[in-house]
Amino acid sequence: MAEQKIMDEMESQMTAFNLILHSGDARNNVHEAMDAMKVADWATADAKLAEAEESLRQAHQAQTELLQEFSRGTKIEIQIIMVHAQDHLMTTMTLKEVAVELMDVYKKINA
Amino acid sequence: MAEQKIMDEMESQMTAFNLILHSGDARNNVHEAMDAMKVADWATADAKLAEAEESLRQAHQAQTELLQEFSRGTKIEIQIIMVHAQDHLMTTMTLKEVAVELMDVYKKINA
Amino acid sequence: MAEQKIMDEMESQMTAFNLILHSGDARNNVHEAMDAMKVADWATADAKLAEAEESLRQAHQAQTELLQEFSRGTKIEIQIIMVHAQDHLMTTMTLKEVAVELMDVYKKINA
Repeated sequence: MAEQKIMDEMESQMTAFNLILHSGDARNNVHEAMDAMKVADWATADAKLAEAEESLRQAHQAQTELLQEFSRGTKIEIQIIMVHAQDHLMTTMTLKEVAVELMDVYKKINA
Repeated sequence: MAEQKIMDEMESQMTAFNLILHSGDARNNVHEAMDAMKVADWATADAKLAEAEESLRQAHQAQTELLQEFSRGTKIEIQIIMVHAQDHLMTTMTLKEVAVELMDVYKKINA
Repeated sequence: MAEQKIMDEMESQMTAFNLILHSGDARNNVHEAMDAMKVADWATADAKLAEAEESLRQAHQAQTELLQEFSRGTKIEIQIIMVHAQDHLMTTMTLKEVAVELMDVYKKINA
C-alpha cells in the first residue's frame, strides 16, 4: 500500500494566506461597489464587482485545489489560520452575492 | 475510565458531503426566491424560501448531531472537507436570512 | 530548540464558547435592528447596530488573540466546536455589514 502524502505545514499556511489576501481584496471591492450603487454610479459598481469576482475566482481556485488534494488522499493538517481563511472566502463570496442583489434593488429605487 | 469514542473517518466525511448537498440545494432555492421577488412573484418566492428552509433544517440537524457527538466526548478528526461543509451551511443560512429581508424591501418598493 | 507550546484543550473550548456567545448576542441585535429599520425607527436600528458591533468587537478580539497565539507558534488543536464558533462569528459580521447597507436602502425608500 502506498504511503499517504502529507501536505507540508508551510505550504498549507501559504495557501491560507493566499486565500485571506484575495478574499480581503474582494471584500474591499464589494464594499466600494456598494458605495457606488448607493449614488447610482452603476459603471463603477459594475467594475468593482467584476474586480471582486476576479479576486474571488483566484481564491476559490486555491481552495478547490486544496479540496482536490484532499480527495486524492493527501493528509492536510487543519490549522486555525486555514479555518479562518476559508471563512473569509466563503463569507466574502456571500457578501458579493448580496451586493449583486442590492444593485437590482438600487436600480429599482432610482428608476 | 472509559475509552474515548472516535468518529470513523468515513462517517465524518459522509456527514460533510450531506451538509454540502443540502446546503447546495438550499442555496439554489434562495437564489430562485430572490429572482422571483425581483419580479414581484411573491408566491414563488415564498415557496422557494420554504424549500430552502427545509433543506437547511436537514443540514442543520446533521451539524447539530455532530456537535452533540463532540459534546458527549467523541473525538472527531477535523478534515478540510468538514470545515468547507460547515462554511457552506452557515453562509447559506445567512444568505437565506438576507433573502427574507430583501422580500420586505421588494414588497415596499412595489407597494 | 524550545519546546512548542500547546494550547490547553479546555482553554480552546472556552474561547469557542465565548465566540458563540458574543456572536449570538450580536446576531440577535442585528435582527432587531433590521426589524426597526423596516418600520423607519432609525434610532432603535442605530442603537441595536451599535450593540451588535460591541459584541462583535469582543468576539473578534477573542479570535484575533487565538490567531496571534498561533502565529507565535502555539499548537492549537482544532475541534469541531472551534470551527463552528468561527463560522458563527464571520457570518454574523457579514450579516451586520448587510444590515448597514439595508439601512441606507430603507432610508431611500422612506425618503
